[in-house]
Amino acid sequence: MIEQGSEKTGTKQLTPISELGEFGLIKHLTKYANHQNSSTVKGIGDDAAIIKNGDHYTVVSTDMLVEGIHFDLMYTPLKHLGYKSIVVNLSDIYAMNAEPEQVTVSIAISSKFTVEALEELYDGILTACKNHEVDLVGGDTSSSRLGMVISVTAIGKVKEKAITYRNTAQVGDYICVSGDLGAAYLGLQLLEREKRIFMENPQIQPQLTGNDYIIQKQLRPEARKDILEILNSYKIQPTAMIDISDGLSSDLLHICHDSNVGCRVMEENVPIHQASYQMAMEFNLNPISCALSGGEDYELLFTVAPDDIKPLEDLHGIAIIGRITELEKGYLLVGKTGREDTLTAQGWKHI
Amino acid sequence: MIEQGSEKTGTKQLTPISELGEFGLIKHLTKYANHQNSSTVKGIGDDAAIIKNGDHYTVVSTDMLVEGIHFDLMYTPLKHLGYKSIVVNLSDIYAMNAEPEQVTVSIAISSKFTVEALEELYDGILTACKNHEVDLVGGDTSSSRLGMVISVTAIGKVKEKAITYRNTAQVGDYICVSGDLGAAYLGLQLLEREKRIFMENPQIQPQLTGNDYIIQKQLRPEARKDILEILNSYKIQPTAMIDISDGLSSDLLHICHDSNVGCRVMEENVPIHQASYQMAMEFNLNPISCALSGGEDYELLFTVAPDDIKPLEDLHGIAIIGRITELEKGYLLVGKTGREDTLTAQGWKHI
Repeated sequence: MIEQGSEKTGTKQLTPISELGEFGLIKHLTKYANHQNSSTVKGIGDDAAIIKNGDHYTVVSTDMLVEGIHFDLMYTPLKHLGYKSIVVNLSDIYAMNAEPEQVTVSIAISSKFTVEALEELYDGILTACKNHEVDLVGGDTSSSRLGMVISVTAIGKVKEKAITYRNTAQVGDYICVSGDLGAAYLGLQLLEREKRIFMENPQIQPQLTGNDYIIQKQLRPEARKDILEILNSYKIQPTAMIDISDGLSSDLLHICHDSNVGCRVMEENVPIHQASYQMAMEFNLNPISCALSGGEDYELLFTVAPDDIKPLEDLHGIAIIGRITELEKGYLLVGKTGREDTLTAQGWKHI
Repeated sequence: MIEQGSEKTGTKQLTPISELGEFGLIKHLTKYANHQNSSTVKGIGDDAAIIKNGDHYTVVSTDMLVEGIHFDLMYTPLKHLGYKSIVVNLSDIYAMNAEPEQVTVSIAISSKFTVEALEELYDGILTACKNHEVDLVGGDTSSSRLGMVISVTAIGKVKEKAITYRNTAQVGDYICVSGDLGAAYLGLQLLEREKRIFMENPQIQPQLTGNDYIIQKQLRPEARKDILEILNSYKIQPTAMIDISDGLSSDLLHICHDSNVGCRVMEENVPIHQASYQMAMEFNLNPISCALSGGEDYELLFTVAPDDIKPLEDLHGIAIIGRITELEKGYLLVGKTGREDTLTAQGWKHI
């Protein structure tokens, strides 16, 4: 009846989505999304949208997790999945230096799921809400013919002055990152390997013991509210901030492109957990590549003015990995030998 | 590896979701969703959540549309689908007597979609945003292995006093409904019939001419902002309000149950469009059943205090269909002959 996307085009060549990539696609599709309300302070293009509401500003972020794309129910406990679906959104709110207060959760499920299965999912959802002091205020439950989809919207609050965008990094700022990187990616590699072995021979039980750290980073990541509390205790407001969902390279380049600056990252300062390092070796992967491009770390990446950096210099859990430079200097990764490479972002992994 | 939902239950019988139904399921899953923030005025259980923000209150609603469940791309133009995905959410905001100002849109798509197809979808999304003066402020684009999913969250604003909940109908109030009912359901029946004929013989082109009204009500419904403007012009604030997404019976029973009241609906006053009436006849369906249970009308159903009803009595486009009664009187539908039946809600259509 209708051939979607071909109606108006006649013999014109159609464009596959892969040609634009995720960010290009969003940019392309929303280029006519002009704002009509004065309350809209910031729309598309940061971790979250900003809406003016008197003294306070409301911060809104939304994310969708799709079975078979973002998670595999063969090795993902539903409780962890529920927890993760909330914290990946809260992470975006924290990345604006804001405090999340409410979430809505929409799920689509096939009839194969039982009430007990959904109880586990909601157990995780509500545990995340409790840990982060946010309220589940709404949602939609729907069926799907195939697979599960979870869509979460988080809403937070922030004072105008405290809002931390990603386009405000300044030349000379220090580049900082919380926690360590690459673990979630390596956890995923391990889970996928054990799944393959299990598929070939269901008698063999997965060997996951001793790898709790990287598996937890993949299946049940945490949003770094504690980092905001630390920065706050030192009265440090980052000059720019983003959460690392796509990988350090990709997300740092977001800050650089949007702030019109360059960067210089010291490879030896990029934090990698011992467990990640070992697993990278086991997979014959370069640990630094995993840390730069792995994604799903949900750590905070932020820039700090030189005057503010002192208290962070010896702080456990926050690594200073480089400096913001003039745009002309480019986006550089400096190896242990002093060799300079250009940082490059990954494409859209999922299509 | 993991058998979801069976881990903790041992030999205990698992519960199919169909046993609880949609509303029972949501209630069951969210019974421990206690609120921790004083800004959360209203959570789950109305058309939208309410968040206190100084003088104004923020209203949040979210909905998910799933291919094969909520729409069929064989006969749904993507532009209409985009339009509908926005207005079904705005309808929830209007049903709180609030003004929508922002939306976020998350989509999951398979690689079969081209950029041009998504342009059509966003054309519809942005047209709806323009018509309703709302801003598209965020979203997420993801892939799906099979089928398209669209998840929209709408955010609005309302003064505390103007908020219209669904649990505040009073005995003696008049029950009013905007527009007419059943058309969207009959439009769907027609589209499904023509699809079946087309599937059997692709040479036969669908016969849709002359049925524009019911098809438009199904494919490109409108959210009734204009009704709020009319009520406002008469300084009428409904005592309770809901939008009709599940069907008049089901949604009126929401108001009754939540307000702890009964109702008495006069069948002859339920508004049915001539085109709906004719199509019901063609399908051998009872027009009043289509109006009561069809769903997807996105009309507003509201109750008005007796002192306020006068200006609405002869107003075109708003029908007074009955009265709110004491709970003990039950939920009654009074036929043209005076015969009384009990109104009953439909179950969860989609599972």
